[in-house]
Amino acid sequence: MKLCRFGEPGQEKPGMIDHNGDLRDLSEEIADIAREALTDQSIEILSKLDPMKLPMVDMPVRFGPCVAGTGKFLCIGLNYSDHAAETGADIPEHPIVFHKATSAIVGANDDVVLPRGSERSDWEVELGVVIGKPCKYVTEAEALDHVAGYCVVNDVSERHFQTQLSGQWTKGKSCDTFGPIGPWLVTRNEVPDPQALSMTLDLNGKRMQTGNTSTMIFTVAQCIAHLSELMTLHPGDIITTGTPPGVGMGIKPEPVYLKAGDVMELEIEGLGRQRQEVRADG
Amino acid sequence: MKLCRFGEPGQEKPGMIDHNGDLRDLSEEIADIAREALTDQSIEILSKLDPMKLPMVDMPVRFGPCVAGTGKFLCIGLNYSDHAAETGADIPEHPIVFHKATSAIVGANDDVVLPRGSERSDWEVELGVVIGKPCKYVTEAEALDHVAGYCVVNDVSERHFQTQLSGQWTKGKSCDTFGPIGPWLVTRNEVPDPQALSMTLDLNGKRMQTGNTSTMIFTVAQCIAHLSELMTLHPGDIITTGTPPGVGMGIKPEPVYLKAGDVMELEIEGLGRQRQEVRADG
Repeated sequence: MKLCRFGEPGQEKPGMIDHNGDLRDLSEEIADIAREALTDQSIEILSKLDPMKLPMVDMPVRFGPCVAGTGKFLCIGLNYSDHAAETGADIPEHPIVFHKATSAIVGANDDVVLPRGSERSDWEVELGVVIGKPCKYVTEAEALDHVAGYCVVNDVSERHFQTQLSGQWTKGKSCDTFGPIGPWLVTRNEVPDPQALSMTLDLNGKRMQTGNTSTMIFTVAQCIAHLSELMTLHPGDIITTGTPPGVGMGIKPEPVYLKAGDVMELEIEGLGRQRQEVRADG
Repeated sequence: MKLCRFGEPGQEKPGMIDHNGDLRDLSEEIADIAREALTDQSIEILSKLDPMKLPMVDMPVRFGPCVAGTGKFLCIGLNYSDHAAETGADIPEHPIVFHKATSAIVGANDDVVLPRGSERSDWEVELGVVIGKPCKYVTEAEALDHVAGYCVVNDVSERHFQTQLSGQWTKGKSCDTFGPIGPWLVTRNEVPDPQALSMTLDLNGKRMQTGNTSTMIFTVAQCIAHLSELMTLHPGDIITTGTPPGVGMGIKPEPVYLKAGDVMELEIEGLGRQRQEVRADG
């Protein structure tokens, strides 16, 4: 299933995409795509509904963040062997972990707003993992059973804030609007192998990133297992799993950064497309 | 006012401490100590109540986290000149910022649980700042107007996880139970100068940390202003502002770390006391 949240910011309703690509209203069935709606039981109940009997919603609509109530927005850094090479970084021994502020989360097609002082904002197409049930000390073999589903994430990153403001990457990762997620959450039964998904990012129509989750250094299951040794993962938590080559800071001879008016388009195989216009904060 | 949340985990009610030190039930007045209850208007309405007319609650009770609905738990690192010297670190040019997972938050006197594999868990008494109204691009002069109040925080830290697992401090900061906050939120009108508060931490009855917020490198107002240039701060967000000297890893000739059975007692002038027993995860 493709689950989503549609409507104006803060007033989103739950929905699902039917097999014709039409949007169906789920608000008579569940309160939101959040917490208890992410359990296996809830997803099984939803999967037994006949989408054709749910109210159809006229398009276009705004897609909000595809999951609500996210407590943690965890990020894995330098997790593609080819991206690590591009940035000149060593292959890490363990997954690099940092947080994006949950207040950075926006819908898949919302504007990305460059904060005041930003001169080095960059794009990162990533596979997002949404946790469906609480998860502590899980093994790699059990890890994927705790996933509700997958989505596209743009891990927008201000490189100056990330690296030049006295340390810890989160400064460049947590700006408002720097976390588009969605457009929908694809339940895990429809993603049999999360390590075999092609992914792209275009800037102003030009292909910048081309990758495949097969080149992750730490698999989704390994990342979940590692994180669960450090802390409990809760339903609605998002793990974004790193980006393949082609970010702006890696471009030779001169890096390329986002500017007002730019358009980013992202796609991951089976998980849908995002499109963000970039603007500068007033 | 001293605002608090009391009761079993997940079922806390809002309360206030009267001038006799008795606990009064606020649940007929407000739903929780969270979001809209943190605005100036709400705090003013509460301040006009006669605590003696509110239901008294028999003690002892469990104090839950003193604020609910926290979206971000932001931490300032190496923010005391004397602690920076102790760790051998340079004085940072800007505030060092990292996140604690909000899932680490517990009540002031709840157990601190050492995660499996922890051998270097440490204590850090800190001044916590709770945001009361949304805050973006604020100046240092305006910053404290956005504060609902202050509380004691123990920024419990696993040093091995923090520094030896391939980078980014949050790994050692985000373990479950590593964020006791409270016992109460002291509204900002009762803390005229947050840069003049003495603070202590005792381990098993022995004084380990002695400090004063007067030796902060970046003041509370400077930290808020800096963070607000990076992201919007929302009501209920917590900023914990760094620790004075005396952490376990700084002890000579050998560092001292937490072990099961230890007791930590923390106090900040005017903000109350915390007491945590340490146990190991099974």
